[in-house]
Amino acid sequence: MTLDELRREVLEANRELVRRGLVLYTFGNASGLWLRQGLVVIKPSGVPFEELTEEQMVVTDLDGRVVEGRLRPSSDLATHLEIYRAFGAGGVVHTHSTYATAWAQAGREIPCYGTTQADYCRGPVPVTAPLEATEISGDYERNTGRTIVRRFSGLNPREAPWVLVHGHGPFTWGATPREALFHAVILEEVARLAWLTVSLNPAAEPLPQVHIDRHFLRKHGPQASYGQPKD
Amino acid sequence: MTLDELRREVLEANRELVRRGLVLYTFGNASGLWLRQGLVVIKPSGVPFEELTEEQMVVTDLDGRVVEGRLRPSSDLATHLEIYRAFGAGGVVHTHSTYATAWAQAGREIPCYGTTQADYCRGPVPVTAPLEATEISGDYERNTGRTIVRRFSGLNPREAPWVLVHGHGPFTWGATPREALFHAVILEEVARLAWLTVSLNPAAEPLPQVHIDRHFLRKHGPQASYGQPKD
Amino acid sequence: MTLDELRREVLEANRELVRRGLVLYTFGNASGLWLRQGLVVIKPSGVPFEELTEEQMVVTDLDGRVVEGRLRPSSDLATHLEIYRAFGAGGVVHTHSTYATAWAQAGREIPCYGTTQADYCRGPVPVTAPLEATEISGDYERNTGRTIVRRFSGLNPREAPWVLVHGHGPFTWGATPREALFHAVILEEVARLAWLTVSLNPAAEPLPQVHIDRHFLRKHGPQASYGQPKD
Amino acid sequence: MTLDELRREVLEANRELVRRGLVLYTFGNASGLWLRQGLVVIKPSGVPFEELTEEQMVVTDLDGRVVEGRLRPSSDLATHLEIYRAFGAGGVVHTHSTYATAWAQAGREIPCYGTTQADYCRGPVPVTAPLEATEISGDYERNTGRTIVRRFSGLNPREAPWVLVHGHGPFTWGATPREALFHAVILEEVARLAWLTVSLNPAAEPLPQVHIDRHFLRKHGPQASYGQPKD
Repeated sequence: MTLDELRREVLEANRELVRRGLVLYTFGNASGLWLRQGLVVIKPSGVPFEELTEEQMVVTDLDGRVVEGRLRPSSDLATHLEIYRAFGAGGVVHTHSTYATAWAQAGREIPCYGTTQADYCRGPVPVTAPLEATEISGDYERNTGRTIVRRFSGLNPREAPWVLVHGHGPFTWGATPREALFHAVILEEVARLAWLTVSLNPAAEPLPQVHIDRHFLRKHGPQASYGQPKD
Repeated sequence: MTLDELRREVLEANRELVRRGLVLYTFGNASGLWLRQGLVVIKPSGVPFEELTEEQMVVTDLDGRVVEGRLRPSSDLATHLEIYRAFGAGGVVHTHSTYATAWAQAGREIPCYGTTQADYCRGPVPVTAPLEATEISGDYERNTGRTIVRRFSGLNPREAPWVLVHGHGPFTWGATPREALFHAVILEEVARLAWLTVSLNPAAEPLPQVHIDRHFLRKHGPQASYGQPKD
Repeated sequence: MTLDELRREVLEANRELVRRGLVLYTFGNASGLWLRQGLVVIKPSGVPFEELTEEQMVVTDLDGRVVEGRLRPSSDLATHLEIYRAFGAGGVVHTHSTYATAWAQAGREIPCYGTTQADYCRGPVPVTAPLEATEISGDYERNTGRTIVRRFSGLNPREAPWVLVHGHGPFTWGATPREALFHAVILEEVARLAWLTVSLNPAAEPLPQVHIDRHFLRKHGPQASYGQPKD
Repeated sequence: MTLDELRREVLEANRELVRRGLVLYTFGNASGLWLRQGLVVIKPSGVPFEELTEEQMVVTDLDGRVVEGRLRPSSDLATHLEIYRAFGAGGVVHTHSTYATAWAQAGREIPCYGTTQADYCRGPVPVTAPLEATEISGDYERNTGRTIVRRFSGLNPREAPWVLVHGHGPFTWGATPREALFHAVILEEVARLAWLTVSLNPAAEPLPQVHIDRHFLRKHGPQASYGQPKD
């Protein structure tokens, strides 16, 4: 993949955020990693999605230094970078999508109530701890990334490709920007389903782990039987 | 009806799932039974709905052996087959539609709170028992079908053309794929109405049986007075 | 107004039900009264809205005898007729619109929580008593109309142009089919607002009557100051 | 800016209310202040949004006397005028948008549960006190404005560009009609997020003030780091 191809995929993922109804105005951003040279392509800050062009995409190194592009990168860049460094992701997406953000504001993880979630996640959707005052007044966006990484201590980011940042909103990731976007769409639906579930039955039980594993492994790993065989 | 005509109707039912907002990405499938030779036409696994063509539809026998088509059938095929064998249906639809899935995740049947539901169902929308660990690790999709059939012991599948699979989502059926799809759309609305009803009044009473019967029989059976006389 | 003009207005009101998202498939109907000869124009039963033509509209007298048209009238005709006879309305609309139907299923009247409702209604949205078994097994649709009329004993149908039929859904009316449709749209929004209101504050207080009257009379009656002066 | 330019911007803000789904029929209005001569441009009363033209916009002075235009101004004009006089705003928008109106009907302020709100508001969304009977029967629309201004005693209207009028709905403002409209859209989403948040966790905590300030000041004031540098 060339850098130009990645730029197009990142642009496309940003546009898809709008088409899927996940962002209002400029509240969200998608980025991608160009592994070959350790560069990140990300949406510029505060530019309306409908006006975005390929040339406006900002390219930075993994320390956040702008390498190409004349605009400021998304203000959430430092959070994306922490995720790239820690999780081996190829794409990251951040939104304020309604249902996922509501769980983040409620400070509750999303239990795995059904197979829709289990198809993509081997347990609950994690929520971070609230930031400390010093983390907020310090390097805020980077500390947001660090609190995400800390929350995944003992968790496999391939088995939960998403997180809720307490009092803020969701970040999702994947092998590519397209997959990170795909996870953002599914997380929003999973969050909506779980909200309805608890409103119908506050004592609803999550699926047993054997059931979660059955679905997760039907779609992921060497025994996957879903979809068409890959050549 | 020829097999080709059925293939077109099954394709059309799968597309209508998208137009009615009942599926996200590939989360759903419709199938139809060709009674003449005991064959089933079903959506291929994991293929996006917008790319589906008539040729991609998979034809299997009632034991799930592929008879025509080069793609893998939907991973839920075995569940559809159990329903065909037990209920005398001509079409089956499975979705993860939001409100019906929420009731399935909550593990609650949907009481018949109003005439919208009574027009199509002579009582509550049944929910299956959770699967046992051995059923999950065994022939999972077929066991899902068996638990549906078991739940209908003593029930008439023409008087409740739908079921909620615990922790999973709805299956619906009908005389044709088109009718199974029609029931999937109505079930989603009925599930939404019932969710709002219990949130407004947790102690809401279902309709008395005499009222349910009045509506159900206005639309079904020899005394039906709804719609235009059939020639 | 000629009968043909009324037919067109009734057709248009039926189509607007779809455009406003108030009906699913054939679940609703609009009618109009031709006062000159005491005739009612109503949607035929079970015909999909998108296929409706002017010629298909059914014309009946106030006893429900078909005077013009080759199709069966809507199965709810007898309910419409009771409303015409008792309330001096020129148009009637019936839907199963989601939020209004949920209140009807919950068996709760909608308190007047805000000025959106007060602009059209001088108090709560009334809900009928549940039908008795004998009313259900008897002349069901007509008895539905009678229970509406009974509920309005002591109420002015111009000051509450709508009702929730217990376990069923809303009926609305107005000087014309267009106005009855307008009230159906507003009732749905009012029902949604009130549902959200009680979920935020189960002890929410209705507006004081002086506030309700201020808004209602700003839009209705000789002192109306809203909108443009009528020539 | 000429008066004609303002007229176009006010017209455009009124149309955007419809495109953003914030108004039903005629339930809302946008206005703008022409500071040069102390004139206000506002939507005419009761005219459907889709029919609005530039010429129909009504121009008044700050006492509400019509200076240009042949139609009656919006019935809420007097409320807009109070806001212009007290808050130094350049644009005002009033809607009955669903979620914001529900909080207004519930009589509850919206706590600042997350960064989506903190980006635009340094604390909760204020709600006014209910109007007294004498305020209702007196100069109602003007008293509505006065109760808003009274509620902001001790608050900075630039740090909370919106208010919920008890039992009625939201008013928002900004430096221009376009910004007032922008705030109306965001308030509706913030109200929806907060409603979901309390339904998931009735004891949810608002963000700590240090976190609110961090986000608010990232977008506002001399240290703003969000978006592109202004030339």
